[in-house]
Amino acid sequence: MAARRHCSGLPSKAKALKQMLTGKDLSFLMEAHSGLSARIVQEAGFKAIWASGLSISAQLGVRDNNEASWTQVTDVAEYMSDATDIPILIDADTGYGNFNNARRLVTKLEKIGVAGACIEDKLFPKTNSLLDERSAQPLADIKEFSNKITAMKDTQSDENFCVVARVESFIAGWPLEEALKRATAYAEAGADAVLIHSKKSDPSDIEAFMKHWNNKAPVVIVPTNYPKTPVSRFQELGISSVIWANHNVRASIAAMQKTTKQIFEEQSLINASKDIATVKEIFRLQTQDEYLKAEDKYLPKA
Amino acid sequence: MAARRHCSGLPSKAKALKQMLTGKDLSFLMEAHSGLSARIVQEAGFKAIWASGLSISAQLGVRDNNEASWTQVTDVAEYMSDATDIPILIDADTGYGNFNNARRLVTKLEKIGVAGACIEDKLFPKTNSLLDERSAQPLADIKEFSNKITAMKDTQSDENFCVVARVESFIAGWPLEEALKRATAYAEAGADAVLIHSKKSDPSDIEAFMKHWNNKAPVVIVPTNYPKTPVSRFQELGISSVIWANHNVRASIAAMQKTTKQIFEEQSLINASKDIATVKEIFRLQTQDEYLKAEDKYLPKA
Amino acid sequence: MAARRHCSGLPSKAKALKQMLTGKDLSFLMEAHSGLSARIVQEAGFKAIWASGLSISAQLGVRDNNEASWTQVTDVAEYMSDATDIPILIDADTGYGNFNNARRLVTKLEKIGVAGACIEDKLFPKTNSLLDERSAQPLADIKEFSNKITAMKDTQSDENFCVVARVESFIAGWPLEEALKRATAYAEAGADAVLIHSKKSDPSDIEAFMKHWNNKAPVVIVPTNYPKTPVSRFQELGISSVIWANHNVRASIAAMQKTTKQIFEEQSLINASKDIATVKEIFRLQTQDEYLKAEDKYLPKA
Amino acid sequence: MAARRHCSGLPSKAKALKQMLTGKDLSFLMEAHSGLSARIVQEAGFKAIWASGLSISAQLGVRDNNEASWTQVTDVAEYMSDATDIPILIDADTGYGNFNNARRLVTKLEKIGVAGACIEDKLFPKTNSLLDERSAQPLADIKEFSNKITAMKDTQSDENFCVVARVESFIAGWPLEEALKRATAYAEAGADAVLIHSKKSDPSDIEAFMKHWNNKAPVVIVPTNYPKTPVSRFQELGISSVIWANHNVRASIAAMQKTTKQIFEEQSLINASKDIATVKEIFRLQTQDEYLKAEDKYLPKA
Repeated sequence: MAARRHCSGLPSKAKALKQMLTGKDLSFLMEAHSGLSARIVQEAGFKAIWASGLSISAQLGVRDNNEASWTQVTDVAEYMSDATDIPILIDADTGYGNFNNARRLVTKLEKIGVAGACIEDKLFPKTNSLLDERSAQPLADIKEFSNKITAMKDTQSDENFCVVARVESFIAGWPLEEALKRATAYAEAGADAVLIHSKKSDPSDIEAFMKHWNNKAPVVIVPTNYPKTPVSRFQELGISSVIWANHNVRASIAAMQKTTKQIFEEQSLINASKDIATVKEIFRLQTQDEYLKAEDKYLPKA
Repeated sequence: MAARRHCSGLPSKAKALKQMLTGKDLSFLMEAHSGLSARIVQEAGFKAIWASGLSISAQLGVRDNNEASWTQVTDVAEYMSDATDIPILIDADTGYGNFNNARRLVTKLEKIGVAGACIEDKLFPKTNSLLDERSAQPLADIKEFSNKITAMKDTQSDENFCVVARVESFIAGWPLEEALKRATAYAEAGADAVLIHSKKSDPSDIEAFMKHWNNKAPVVIVPTNYPKTPVSRFQELGISSVIWANHNVRASIAAMQKTTKQIFEEQSLINASKDIATVKEIFRLQTQDEYLKAEDKYLPKA
Repeated sequence: MAARRHCSGLPSKAKALKQMLTGKDLSFLMEAHSGLSARIVQEAGFKAIWASGLSISAQLGVRDNNEASWTQVTDVAEYMSDATDIPILIDADTGYGNFNNARRLVTKLEKIGVAGACIEDKLFPKTNSLLDERSAQPLADIKEFSNKITAMKDTQSDENFCVVARVESFIAGWPLEEALKRATAYAEAGADAVLIHSKKSDPSDIEAFMKHWNNKAPVVIVPTNYPKTPVSRFQELGISSVIWANHNVRASIAAMQKTTKQIFEEQSLINASKDIATVKEIFRLQTQDEYLKAEDKYLPKA
Repeated sequence: MAARRHCSGLPSKAKALKQMLTGKDLSFLMEAHSGLSARIVQEAGFKAIWASGLSISAQLGVRDNNEASWTQVTDVAEYMSDATDIPILIDADTGYGNFNNARRLVTKLEKIGVAGACIEDKLFPKTNSLLDERSAQPLADIKEFSNKITAMKDTQSDENFCVVARVESFIAGWPLEEALKRATAYAEAGADAVLIHSKKSDPSDIEAFMKHWNNKAPVVIVPTNYPKTPVSRFQELGISSVIWANHNVRASIAAMQKTTKQIFEEQSLINASKDIATVKEIFRLQTQDEYLKAEDKYLPKA
């Protein structure tokens, strides 16, 4: 008998994520925000999925200010996990509360087969620091945030479940020292990796950070604002992983706006049907063939 | 004081849908499957949204065989309704069970501001009749299905909530007489409109139906398979409304497949970022400006 | 035709709650924590329900520290509202975040027919102040909490939806002046009533408060810890409403512990079945008779 | 380091349930319908929980006619599983649809740590056969139902997850032969046990069945209607397990009705507080002590 698939796939997924983060080669996580987009990411060959909070909230039609409850977010993550076999690292905002909310989050994520959680050192509810012009915006207390990481690591049941600590100090207008202090504390608290976020249009924040980091933990980056830097440069710097953060939801927005506008204006499907997926492709993505085989086996037609 | 917006928008939405279905002009419903796509449909100028079961299940990453529970579907519909002011007609499969499940569905839909439900005369759980090669596939008992419609109409609290009866007999391989018999029974049972579905690549099923229908109730069609017929022809035939059934999800699939593939292969965002929406556009769709104004008012920064 | 019942019952429920809070007579709200207990409260003759956070979390099997997400709480409230026609005032903790979370909460509550929300001036996530021995425990910033109340009042669509501001300063070890200052600010911000909470075993906190309050807004109390004071005394003091806060869940716990123990020890149902409800009583509470009548009408047996 | 607890507890729970069903000694499952009642069952010493569909629907305030969606039922089951370490056998009605719905159910149950599912051979949506006076009420097609069992067994990832087939033929007014035929088919299809249900006030149906059964699979019974038969008789007959089916919800109903009525009539808590659990007992059941210890560790007060 073939080996049974684990109900949530957690063990193999968490192991794969852990290996990606700690491995020597630069690895890549591609954004998804639904079961559908997650499956598309897997089919393209990516080895891991970034379940972006911005994208998930956008897709739900709400704001990225903790408008969706944490269980509404994990409901989306469960569809994503069910639809795929590769690991998902979820953008879990601040952990949705204190150490205890974060502990509960870990247990829920493990149940639904999500391989890791990234939490950021901001205050709940999250506001959009990119839209906040102040320098030195308030961030989470370092000790409390570190303890939250430890609480998550103490809670996980799978040894490979990953906690990634996202350091928001560059984004929030603080100097390098603050980023290093925070990243060090988080790594010491048990974080499996740190995510260093920067809003600059060049990688100078990241370069400065890596110069002093001494590889205390794997480093994850999100080069949305500095896309011109080739990934070879990130490999040189010793970066562990790169997140392509929100490009699937952005692709879907542009495409739907175009198609909807065209159908609205032309009152016709002819042109609008040309560059879009077929209905058969939907059926394929839904694995209707597996269903039909199973129907033949378990529910034969008269 | 400005008039308060109704918490779910139901009264104005249901009224608008009712007027569309019963009005003289041909009207159009565009598919959406998420809060995001629903808002895009509204912004394009459409007056109503088709919450497609195929698209919603595809987006969730499940099959269109009642794999998502009925409350998982209404959860999606609630996001869609919250994100928009125009009416939503939901593709409610068979009503998810018997008359009683359909009654409960109506109450739930009204609570979340969905203006109408379309139910089809198939058996639960729904299978994909397009993938079933048999002619004369089994359909719902006419009397029971008619009673289900009556039960829904007896349950609604808003006078304008619409129940649309989808006649699957052409799709399931039955002759015109069956479609007419069913549509007549459903209209007599109280359906606000009938949806006549056809898988032919020309509108001959629809033309034959309209020839004998005598306008017993408004007729809705889904010309996915006969896109070449101009809408002026549908207006001539006396059709009430046209559903553009699944083109947003199909547009999003093609776009995400292309973008994901490109980023995977190029290991770069540069080209992939060209034809997709900006992050600012996400913020705009999330109405972050309204949030910031409200933050200034209710949560001023120190 | 008989008047249709509103899908959620909100208008009549909110009106009834508003009248209770502002009326001259002392009124009573009885705790419930599920659809079942809510219906029992209504059947006993009570005119309103207190959806206790402590009881709901206990019934779910989680702690009363914002372990359940806010949508998990509103899911319970929806069952409660569906099962009853009298108003529900929900114990909404701190509003589950900032002004924006509280705004979203109001819209959700109105959709599901909950007539009012009580929010308390503590920090999120809520901790159990009864188990915190410190005097002068930290509370919410007065201005921010007041703005949150205003944001909720600005959001409601039904004119009678009620926002009750729960003042935790006595519980948290602060003197009378703090309670008065906070209650005044909250009333000025638009609260329909203030709930003055005390952990003393006599009503002296309440008496002191009422002496200086000058009826700036209706006052609600929770006399769990001072049960010996007759309600006539509360009427004298000018109290608006009394909440019997958690006695249904406590009754259910004792009864289930007794019954379970008895069946476990006796390995028999004979004695354990004596003092419990019959299966027929379950069917009655589930209104199976209405279902059977509807089945006769809509789904006649062959 | 102590062994980590599995996130859902599935492996140990499923193993325990399998051993109970296949073991020589008569074992007992006690009804629960919420996280709270489940924990009470565990604390009393029971080794397994029966998640009754009747009780769960009653507690939610809906009818036991598949009014709650299958995911609303599994949401309750997840709270129950999270709150306990002993196995739960869930009353999963008919499996909520066809073979495919049943397959999806198994995967969901395993994710949330539910050790087994009992499905009954009725039609969806379930109606209350106890309230149906017809003899020979329609039941599920034997072959289709057997295939559904096989589909569930083929789907489970944990080798010990249990599928129990509930034979409704006695309840539905069919003779012994039908029960034997069905039970045999279901055992051959892979059911880990059969549940033989009877509405007689004596165990004669069960006795007749056991006389001809030849121990083809473990037999589970529900002696609600024949409580006078001592359990020693069931042991003699070779019964595997006894379900005490709905006594916790019935105990809670009687207790809440009494307490609510008393408080309503007396307008006082004094007498009503005597025989109910204390608030401290709620805190204990919520394991507030563990929270406080964790708070000391992860969130020390200033």
